[in-house]
Formats: sequence, C-alpha cells, structure tokens
Amino acid sequence: MTRTALDYDDNWLDPDELAHMRRRLPLTYVHGLPVQRGDDGEVDRVGLLLRTLDTGALGREIVGGRVKFHESIRTALLRHAEKDLGTLALPTAPLSLTPFHVAEYFPTEGVSPYHDPRQHAVALCYILPVIGDCSPGGDALSLDWLTPHEAVSPEITGEMRHGQQHIVRAGLAHLGILP
Amino acid sequence: MTRTALDYDDNWLDPDELAHMRRRLPLTYVHGLPVQRGDDGEVDRVGLLLRTLDTGALGREIVGGRVKFHESIRTALLRHAEKDLGTLALPTAPLSLTPFHVAEYFPTEGVSPYHDPRQHAVALCYILPVIGDCSPGGDALSLDWLTPHEAVSPEITGEMRHGQQHIVRAGLAHLGILP
Amino acid sequence: MTRTALDYDDNWLDPDELAHMRRRLPLTYVHGLPVQRGDDGEVDRVGLLLRTLDTGALGREIVGGRVKFHESIRTALLRHAEKDLGTLALPTAPLSLTPFHVAEYFPTEGVSPYHDPRQHAVALCYILPVIGDCSPGGDALSLDWLTPHEAVSPEITGEMRHGQQHIVRAGLAHLGILP
Amino acid sequence: MTRTALDYDDNWLDPDELAHMRRRLPLTYVHGLPVQRGDDGEVDRVGLLLRTLDTGALGREIVGGRVKFHESIRTALLRHAEKDLGTLALPTAPLSLTPFHVAEYFPTEGVSPYHDPRQHAVALCYILPVIGDCSPGGDALSLDWLTPHEAVSPEITGEMRHGQQHIVRAGLAHLGILP
Repeated sequence: MTRTALDYDDNWLDPDELAHMRRRLPLTYVHGLPVQRGDDGEVDRVGLLLRTLDTGALGREIVGGRVKFHESIRTALLRHAEKDLGTLALPTAPLSLTPFHVAEYFPTEGVSPYHDPRQHAVALCYILPVIGDCSPGGDALSLDWLTPHEAVSPEITGEMRHGQQHIVRAGLAHLGILP
Repeated sequence: MTRTALDYDDNWLDPDELAHMRRRLPLTYVHGLPVQRGDDGEVDRVGLLLRTLDTGALGREIVGGRVKFHESIRTALLRHAEKDLGTLALPTAPLSLTPFHVAEYFPTEGVSPYHDPRQHAVALCYILPVIGDCSPGGDALSLDWLTPHEAVSPEITGEMRHGQQHIVRAGLAHLGILP
Repeated sequence: MTRTALDYDDNWLDPDELAHMRRRLPLTYVHGLPVQRGDDGEVDRVGLLLRTLDTGALGREIVGGRVKFHESIRTALLRHAEKDLGTLALPTAPLSLTPFHVAEYFPTEGVSPYHDPRQHAVALCYILPVIGDCSPGGDALSLDWLTPHEAVSPEITGEMRHGQQHIVRAGLAHLGILP
Repeated sequence: MTRTALDYDDNWLDPDELAHMRRRLPLTYVHGLPVQRGDDGEVDRVGLLLRTLDTGALGREIVGGRVKFHESIRTALLRHAEKDLGTLALPTAPLSLTPFHVAEYFPTEGVSPYHDPRQHAVALCYILPVIGDCSPGGDALSLDWLTPHEAVSPEITGEMRHGQQHIVRAGLAHLGILP
C-alpha cells in the first residue's frame, strides 16, 4: 500500500459508514486547548468555542475532532485548529506527541468523566498556543478568550459539553495556573 | 445505550469486518513495556516477547494490542498483559493515563518510525511493572528479561518488529536508564 | 571526593547554617502525594497529614522535605515518607524522575501559588502509592485518607499550608480524578 | 521579607561562598536543549555549545546553569539562554514547568549518569525552541546545529561533558526523534 494509492478526499467516509464504525471501534481523537501567553511566557488566557447545539441551546467546546486514516496526530490537530479557529490563527503544533491528558469518551454516562452519546473515543489532549487572529468557522459562534478564573467558573463549566471542563482544568493544572 | 446492552463476546468483530475497518480508520492501541525493579526501586530489567512470525522467522515485541469498543485503556492494557504474560504476571496498571510515548504506526513505511502493513494505529505506551511469574501465551515462545544494555543492543533491536525498538528506547529514556 | 568520605550524620548541617543557606540559594525539595488505589487500579484516596503549627493552629501538608547533599531524589523521597508515614507504610518509589508538577516556593507571597516564609525552594512532586499501614510520626497528629471530593473541598483546602492545595489538585488532575 | 529588600546584584554570592555551599547542599539547576523546528512542526535540529575546557581540550554542553535565590525557573532558563546563545536567539520559555527529564549530577562518578566534580546539582531539563540568530557568548566558541543522527553519533557524544549526552538522548526520545 502506498501513500499515493490513498484517496484523501474529505468525503471518502460517508456518514452512514462513520456512524456504523462509531459503534464498533473506539475512535482516535485529538484535542487542542487554545492558549495565549503573556509577556512573561506564562499562559494567561484560554480559548473556548461557543457553538449552537442540536437542541438549539448554546454549548462550549475546545478544538478537536477525529484523526483520519493515514493522517498524523500533528496534521489532524492543525486541521481541526484551522477548521475551528480559521486560517489566520497561527497555532503551534506540540513539540512532543506526549499529551498532557487522555480523555476517554464513552457512549454510556458515568463510566468516565467524558460522555459522547455518539461514540467511544480516545482523545489525546495538547496545549495549543495561538498567536494569530481567530475567526471561528463551521458551527462555532465565537471563540472567547478567558482568564483561568473565568474558564473554571461555574457559569462556564456549566456550558461545557461532553465533560470537557475536565480537560480545561487538567490543562490549567499542567500549565501550573489552575486557580 | 446501556452497558448491559453491549455484547462483550470476544468474537463480535469478525475478521473480515476488522480487516475492513483497519483500512478506514486509525485503530486505538495500547502498549505495555514490561519491567522489573531492583531493590533500590529503579528498573533494571525489561521484558521482551519472542514470537514466531508468519514468515517462520523469529521476532520480538512488547505487550499490547487494540482497545475494544467500550473498553477502558487500563482494562485493555491488563487484558493484553494477561494474554501475553499469563495470569500470574501481576502487572500494575499505570497510575496516570498520560503515556510516556505515543507511537503512530502507518501502513506506509517511512512516514514515522513505526510501520504496520495491516493498519494505521495510534498506540499509547505505558510502563508495565510486573512482579509475578510470566508464562507467555498465545503465539509467544518466550519472555526474556533483558538488561537495558542488552535491550538496546544491535542483536535485539534487529529482532524488534514494527519499529518497536524505538518504544523500548523511549521507555528507557523516560525511566532514566537508557544506556 | 568519594562517597565514603562524606559524613552522612543527620546533624551535619546545623540549624544556623541551614537558616543562612535558606536565604542564599533555592533549596531542592521533593514531595510525595500519598495515594491508595482501588481494585480497578485507579487511585481513590489521597493521604494528607494533619500537623500542629507553630501558632498552635492545625494545618495540613503532604509528604516531603529537602534533598540532602549527595542524596538521590528517590532516597530523599523515601526518607521523608518514612519520617512522615512511619516504617510500615510501604511506599513505592516513582518509576521515572519526571515529576507530575514542580512547585516553586518563594519567601515573598504572590510570586507563585506557593509561599514559604523561611525559604525559596523548588519542589519536585511525585505520586506516592502506599500499600502498608501509616502511623504518622514527628509532629504529625494524623494521616487522613480522603476521597478526591473531600481533598479539594473548601474545608480541607482552607487547612492546607504553603499553597499545597495546588499540588493536591495538580496530582488529582494528573491522575485523571480531579472532581 | 519583601522582594524590594533583596539585593539582586549578580555578585551577591561570592565565589568562596558558592564553592562552600556546593559542598553542603544540592544546587537547583535548569537546562535548555536548544532546538529548531522544520516546516512540519517537528524538531529537526539540536543545538550544542562547543567550549574550551580548563584542560585546554574542547567539550560540548547544552544551555543551562543554576537558579538564583528568588529567581523563577523560567527566568533562570531565559537568563542562561541569553548568556549562552546571545540576545537575538529568541528562545521560547516552556509552557509547563514539568521537565522532560531530571538530571542528578553527583560529585562522585558512577552514582548516576551525570557527574560534576564541583557539586551535587539537580537539573530540570526543558526543550528550548529557538527561532532567532544565535551568537554564543561567554566561554563558548560556537553553537552547532546538528541533526538527531549527528547529535547522538560517537564523535559528538564523546565530546559531551558531565554525561550530558544522556540529556540530549532523553530530549530526542521525548520529541519522538531519537534515531
């Protein structure tokens, strides 16, 4: 099998097939926690996406999505960053593939802190420094840059989807700035 | 969907279906690097499996395999440890799900240090301390406990499959004992 | 200089000399966060020491203290574990010297989350699994095994000294069990 | 004690006093492994300093030195980077204070892979991405940007001082590019 033999068309996995696989295998996911650094090099802002949910309510998420067949983790992370933050966000890929956290999403609630009714997914979570201008795309209404205190406030954590407030806090703890 | 609604039969994913999915999605894998600790608490031995390959030649591997649908990373790791090391190995599950290394296996050679012609797999690699007696099962001929020097010698690395000598060295580096 | 030439007497650094050095150099510290694991291998309890402070009030701390001249990090960690938890605690030294967190204590408040009026110290923080019986020694009144929820409750965090509640939360986040 | 009460003069610790303390306490050190990233975000070059040793021979080192009293780890790392790489190197401070490796230097050979006849030092090792122009200062003759293969070749490792070739390899393993 050679690389050129692969069809890299975005549509090669049709929705029915993906839905089927989501019930048969754990999907490999990547997450990026968008951050901005202050003058002293320490992170002082965390970026959270605001989306309209299927129910019409609003919900918050971090950057991320699944890794495609034959796609590297770094490429997948930068692809999702571009999709979610726009083409001018200038994110920095992680130096090491060792994630700061691994989130296990289960379709059953309560098995882990993370829940996704569509699927079982194993998500590698990375810090994603961003130095450009973000213009959230797709179904995201906005990207809000929050202080660590705001990011872990009850108002914000109450809006996080799929238990992702735990990823935010694990990220802040990794960075040494969990309030 | 409830947990009890799932069929946990080992055979629920038949070989044809698995072979098909291996060409459509990256599989989530776990690896355990079996280690033994000396009296001072430092690791002094690494365990490598010796297997007969399809070609009839011999090859070495570390513990591991895929994560099943709705299976946690720790459960998958201990299931593969039992399959590869026997029921009396007494492995210790990792305290944290943060792996010491992430290995990306691609079906194309040269994309990364790891190559598996069957599939694209993303493998989370953990140190697996073992205190019991190992009796390798399945298709493994033996489990050999090697010193760090032996484990990275040309004789041994030349027998490692799929580029796993890089996982062994990353593990030894993480443990501070890479010769 | 040979190892045998060193005087390993506990008293070789007299209090005046130590007090002087504490104002001249950052001290190297180690911390161990005592934990117990449940049947599934996940940590379910965290151990916190309760001490009488100089002021007569009570305060909570985790295991730890300074690294002595020519003492390894693992030896220092196990020495402090024995001093704080007794000789029957059976702690497990960390596999890797990579800490889950680095705490910078400054004599000035507000420079970092950690404050120690006596000194500037750089503390490497490790998870310390304990499987034996703990009988706190020295000036510790008790060792209390708390659930993650209890360990981060306002009652407990309000009793933590030197900002160590941040180490507890970073440890729980590293273990994937921060509530 | 307030911050303003401190004397931040570089000379406040005279050589005799420092030499004395080096025999009494472990010193806290920081190391930065200078790296350059390729277009795909992966590190492809490692920077090693070439110095003239006291003996007149040449030796290689990575960036680093001790942390001063009341100095943060990030500040110390950037101070040593400026001293060793010049003012135009534009290094990036680490996002997290969790090091990829901890090196224990002992004055006695053979206790650990690291040896420094002057002192016992505990060194926190960080990856140090550099995007500017390096002009090595102080006693450094040059900074050479090497491929991972060159950096671990016998010619180069034979020139590394104090066992620092182990830090280089641990860094490359952490980055997933150890040859």
